[in-house]
Amino acid sequence: MNYTDRIKFVPTEMKKEKPLTDQLEFGKTFTDHMFMMDYDQEKGWHDPKIVPYQPLIIDPAAMVYHYGQTVFEGLKAYLTEDNRVLLFRPEKNMTRMNSSNERLCIPPIDEELVLQALKKLIAIDRDWIPASEGTSLYIRPFVIATEPYLGVAPSKKYKFMIILSPVGSYYKEGIHPVKILVENEYVRAVSGGTGTVKTAGNYAASLKAQELATSKGYSQVLWLDGLHRKYIEEVGSMNIFFKIKGEVITPALNGSILEGVTRNSILMLLNHWGVPVTERKLSIDEVYQAAIDGELEEAFGTGTAAVISPVGALFMNEQEILINNGRTGELSKKLYDTLTGIQLGTQPDPFNWMVEVQS
Amino acid sequence: MNYTDRIKFVPTEMKKEKPLTDQLEFGKTFTDHMFMMDYDQEKGWHDPKIVPYQPLIIDPAAMVYHYGQTVFEGLKAYLTEDNRVLLFRPEKNMTRMNSSNERLCIPPIDEELVLQALKKLIAIDRDWIPASEGTSLYIRPFVIATEPYLGVAPSKKYKFMIILSPVGSYYKEGIHPVKILVENEYVRAVSGGTGTVKTAGNYAASLKAQELATSKGYSQVLWLDGLHRKYIEEVGSMNIFFKIKGEVITPALNGSILEGVTRNSILMLLNHWGVPVTERKLSIDEVYQAAIDGELEEAFGTGTAAVISPVGALFMNEQEILINNGRTGELSKKLYDTLTGIQLGTQPDPFNWMVEVQS
Repeated sequence: MNYTDRIKFVPTEMKKEKPLTDQLEFGKTFTDHMFMMDYDQEKGWHDPKIVPYQPLIIDPAAMVYHYGQTVFEGLKAYLTEDNRVLLFRPEKNMTRMNSSNERLCIPPIDEELVLQALKKLIAIDRDWIPASEGTSLYIRPFVIATEPYLGVAPSKKYKFMIILSPVGSYYKEGIHPVKILVENEYVRAVSGGTGTVKTAGNYAASLKAQELATSKGYSQVLWLDGLHRKYIEEVGSMNIFFKIKGEVITPALNGSILEGVTRNSILMLLNHWGVPVTERKLSIDEVYQAAIDGELEEAFGTGTAAVISPVGALFMNEQEILINNGRTGELSKKLYDTLTGIQLGTQPDPFNWMVEVQS
Repeated sequence: MNYTDRIKFVPTEMKKEKPLTDQLEFGKTFTDHMFMMDYDQEKGWHDPKIVPYQPLIIDPAAMVYHYGQTVFEGLKAYLTEDNRVLLFRPEKNMTRMNSSNERLCIPPIDEELVLQALKKLIAIDRDWIPASEGTSLYIRPFVIATEPYLGVAPSKKYKFMIILSPVGSYYKEGIHPVKILVENEYVRAVSGGTGTVKTAGNYAASLKAQELATSKGYSQVLWLDGLHRKYIEEVGSMNIFFKIKGEVITPALNGSILEGVTRNSILMLLNHWGVPVTERKLSIDEVYQAAIDGELEEAFGTGTAAVISPVGALFMNEQEILINNGRTGELSKKLYDTLTGIQLGTQPDPFNWMVEVQS
């Protein structure tokens, strides 16, 4: 169904100045326009429109400020050398957003309408997609509860929005490994909670541990499960993979881990290549033992922002272990090159992941 | 220190119509004014002011919408028969707000300034405090992260606000017991998470279970611990107490339970009266066995909104147990009458809990 004509467009009267590509930071600059639509119980989701990027005018009693009923997604648009605009598996994000909505008691969105709105918005702000290597246009769809009511209950009003931010290369000096602190006080999520979905509270809960890790000189924390404080869950806000004796292992989806789109893509690529890969419970002790035995070959985080983030060292119980002598592993590099190559249209796309945005 | 003169006041030019007292609902109507102040890294908390109640104008990339960095409090002001305005232990809420701030990486507020701001705001909107039995003015202080930035990190900008809402009697037809569903799928919080503090994510996570309980005809859910799914934590968004063989038992603060101001006050009152009371681990099995043995005498939730909420029945594993034949227990009633009496100034206040707001 073609929704594009139903989406109203109010162009900006004053285009903003674009930042220089080499000065781009993550998530600080936003483009000229944004998409929004509203929900109420009578009309459902209605009034889809693309308008100039502008502040929201929202009652201080709006439920999002008090009870955190909100979900979001993150994906990217890439400009290819032959000047096409590509999206990476955007339908996966829309499906996941509706899973998040379901858990948070937010009414489902029409995935096809939102995908078309996304494409129309990107086509309008196409000039904002940066061109140099490693850059992209970060896309943030999100829903917030807007009913002014202090009762603890699902809101009766919502706003769905998409904002766009041109982002620089995650690795300004090429892909490089980071040092990770194994977190043993704070917990990100637990089964029965909201760890499997993209909602604000998960991220709010993670800030304290991240702050402490940063103060100790580590880039990210490695989250262990909240029950046994033993099994590996995620790293920072990424999924994580370990390569032990030639086998790639990632924690199985257990009810508290986010089902990352990049995680899923890595699993598909590894299977496609015939590299042994397993989703299962993996304890931090097993990883340490593998390191001691010289069998821990690589470790890397996966997510939309960094794509692949190699782990060079883990710190736990006053003991640091180096992984691959602190250097980026061969498989990590190959996955990074392949995935970014597919995203930029310079490598074959065996699974037809890329979706072109027509001007 | 007297901060009152430093708080700017911009009176409204158009006073709103006040709702009829018998039509008051919880948290839907707001008074003529609100307090706000801003935080940035240069100036710290600054520009405290009381202004007409109005919508907030906030960037769609503000971090509160995406990563839920926000905390809140809830307390009440009461109008006495001799026309005085009383607050119930407001300093406890300010102290807890700073505990919440610490966990959420939000800069601490000046508790004394905020308390004075609260009193000044209430004095200005004093006419909004409803007078009939069981009514009060609900006070909602809260902080939201306002920096427009999509990186997962503590915000560099915040707004602190206080809004006021006249609320009707929680029990329109007198105090009465509710039916509770023991929740065995969803989890409210886990040790190492954010369950001990008042932050949005806890409430967002609770909506789904509450929705399911409501659809089955229950008023609230009884939360079990996330580790063993066995020990009792809270009921809905209240703390919980059980009276078994003459002894009152409430779950000990264990790292995932909120330290309620009403909970603390109940403990003090019971000790003062010489009623045996214990804070300890309490399993749902122990409660069921006590019920079977005829030893479960009373159960009640405690919180700012209801003060005391008697539990008349518990439902778990297809089995419903009645408590005190579904009627309000003697001790529950005595605690309710005493606490509301202290709050309304009709009963002696042995601990000097009440704080008067001067006109």
